[in-house]
Amino acid sequence: MKSNLPELMQQANLDALLITGSAQHNAAMTYFTGSVHVGQADLLVPRGKEPIFVFHNPMEREEAAAAGLRIKDGNEYKPIQLLKKSGGDPLKAIALRYQLMFEEFGISGRVALYGKVEAGPILTIIRHLETLLPDVEFVGENNLNSTLIKARTTKDDYEIEQIREIGKTTIEVVGRTAELLGTSPVKNDVLQDKDGDPLTVGKVKNRINLWLAELAAENPHGTIFAPGRDGGIPHNSGQAETPIRTGQPIVFDIYPCQTGGGYFFDFTRTWCVGHAPDEVQQVYEDVLDVYNRVSEAIKPDTLCRIYQDLTCELFEKKGYATVRQDPALTSGYVHSLAHGVGLEVHEGPYFRSTETNTDMVKKGSVITIEPGLYYPERGFGVRIEDTVWVRPDGELEIVVDFPKDLVL
Amino acid sequence: MKSNLPELMQQANLDALLITGSAQHNAAMTYFTGSVHVGQADLLVPRGKEPIFVFHNPMEREEAAAAGLRIKDGNEYKPIQLLKKSGGDPLKAIALRYQLMFEEFGISGRVALYGKVEAGPILTIIRHLETLLPDVEFVGENNLNSTLIKARTTKDDYEIEQIREIGKTTIEVVGRTAELLGTSPVKNDVLQDKDGDPLTVGKVKNRINLWLAELAAENPHGTIFAPGRDGGIPHNSGQAETPIRTGQPIVFDIYPCQTGGGYFFDFTRTWCVGHAPDEVQQVYEDVLDVYNRVSEAIKPDTLCRIYQDLTCELFEKKGYATVRQDPALTSGYVHSLAHGVGLEVHEGPYFRSTETNTDMVKKGSVITIEPGLYYPERGFGVRIEDTVWVRPDGELEIVVDFPKDLVL
Repeated sequence: MKSNLPELMQQANLDALLITGSAQHNAAMTYFTGSVHVGQADLLVPRGKEPIFVFHNPMEREEAAAAGLRIKDGNEYKPIQLLKKSGGDPLKAIALRYQLMFEEFGISGRVALYGKVEAGPILTIIRHLETLLPDVEFVGENNLNSTLIKARTTKDDYEIEQIREIGKTTIEVVGRTAELLGTSPVKNDVLQDKDGDPLTVGKVKNRINLWLAELAAENPHGTIFAPGRDGGIPHNSGQAETPIRTGQPIVFDIYPCQTGGGYFFDFTRTWCVGHAPDEVQQVYEDVLDVYNRVSEAIKPDTLCRIYQDLTCELFEKKGYATVRQDPALTSGYVHSLAHGVGLEVHEGPYFRSTETNTDMVKKGSVITIEPGLYYPERGFGVRIEDTVWVRPDGELEIVVDFPKDLVL
Repeated sequence: MKSNLPELMQQANLDALLITGSAQHNAAMTYFTGSVHVGQADLLVPRGKEPIFVFHNPMEREEAAAAGLRIKDGNEYKPIQLLKKSGGDPLKAIALRYQLMFEEFGISGRVALYGKVEAGPILTIIRHLETLLPDVEFVGENNLNSTLIKARTTKDDYEIEQIREIGKTTIEVVGRTAELLGTSPVKNDVLQDKDGDPLTVGKVKNRINLWLAELAAENPHGTIFAPGRDGGIPHNSGQAETPIRTGQPIVFDIYPCQTGGGYFFDFTRTWCVGHAPDEVQQVYEDVLDVYNRVSEAIKPDTLCRIYQDLTCELFEKKGYATVRQDPALTSGYVHSLAHGVGLEVHEGPYFRSTETNTDMVKKGSVITIEPGLYYPERGFGVRIEDTVWVRPDGELEIVVDFPKDLVL
């Protein structure tokens, strides 16, 4: 969590973080600023000192102040003069502005770069800065286990509250979706909407988006609502025109965030309307059994990758093929067990089984648990996923729960 | 437009573009792929040749195919072996993968880097590539007038169709918002919702988000709905708890995009419910007059910045202070006239008055026209904005229109 950052920066031998970009939909920045309506900003985070939030559009001065941080108006660096000094080179002018910022706030040494931005301009800006500030070393850490990601792999009380809030919204929408499917009339095995037309994936997704909007959530990555064969390919999101049929399993994976790019929730159920085919029922029960066994096994202060191994082992014992036997597998257990959830829908800790993955389950982690089995050639997939919190007492708690029934 | 890209790449002496990141909410990538549900991808665009869309998550193979481009499964480069070869360094492993990709598809020479990504990892990956591929020069162009932005500053028929589609959605929502404000009961000068409670900015924004979701649009940057003093600071977005009052001007700036990160529209009206104060009426008429005069003046194949100068001149003649007299101005005409609109809400051509701005108005450009006057100390601001298309015949056409009445 944020309070660990000075120690983590010390371990990585970092003197400061430089986070750039927007304050919305930019997890590294939003982690400090909250989601404020500031489009062009820099955040300086000197180790163990108060961050400085530099905004560059004077029209955004009050929105910047709403972050509650020490703020600085970047226009005080006189960008028009800097543009002249740079010989009319806008990226060099920005580098000159960073030089002034670094001087004013005493930033030097090893500085890690963060923020979701266009790749081209930042590359050129850093090249200019390497000339302008030869004593500063700009560090580009691996996004999977960077210093900031390490801090973010455990959540403080405020963050748990935010994730619970978006979790309640998500589960409300899941409940309404179940209600819609469970109460729609059926004609020739196809669900009907209130106009007597087939209820399609597109119509269901529209309703989901409406409900999310009504409850003040955003859905920047869309929703997976994938019946039949589409559900057999984990990231197929479902085709709008596909009608919903009774007895056909649907993989429903929903992962909205708080408005403005706040915290995410991640949740999956597999449903059959009316009845389930026997082979789907059997696979479902096996996935649920693995879900339960793995959930019971997960303990804090252990390596994440052992649970991916455990999941593979449990599936293999039941006779299913797994990704550890063949990384290119497309039928069976084809992905990893889990990932962290926070200001990004996928963040650390990661559960990849590679030896280089040293991510740990920790007290305060918020992670998914999401085993699944996929059979595109047999026309179905099954996944069960909850977002769980590893509490300070070491117990796992499903952040917001929903029944795990296959048949609606 | 896209067909100009080979020539623009030739002018910039570029042999290829490398675009990385997601295919959603990543304008440079979406420009080629459309909004497909592919989270990890690279697009290689060799000059004058077919682009190659490399996806890295085998679960996304069918979504990748939906882009209709030549596709390549990045897992064929055997990422686990590359990780071993890199000594367990994931960013070096990615650089090794780029090396193989560049070899396979004959990419060499000057390669411009694009895509919205985390700044840190790409910096390190490029540093590795500079060692691995000494004959390749990675170019980070200025985002304001990069080669790709230059192509995007003119739109082809497909793009105009997309912008018109999101424009119709936007104007439908604007109409519903006007209807809501115009028909709400009033008690003590405060608009009431249907429960008899004050109608607030937050409630109006919720309705706007609902309507946008219903019409399959996204609102990733939020909405400005700023009454009174908040409207006097151009990027203040309005505070949720503020009640809507009759006679108080509201700046309503709405800029949604197609679902999944497609094309944007950008639109502003300033409204007073019931009646307008005289000073607001006067300022409104002056902004509208400048809007009309500037709209008539804009012609293709001219420098954008001359219209910012013209706007300042027209406002100054009417006795208003402008940003060309004082770049730090906060009362009067404080921003620039216009910007391009497309896969980003702000893109080229830009209308900044700086001498280094050589952006041109061209046939096929889609731009805003948005003069405004701001008086936070007097408790109001006025802005009028349309999205207009510079047609192939050189005439300006408002893409989707709405009446310009101050009083609802």
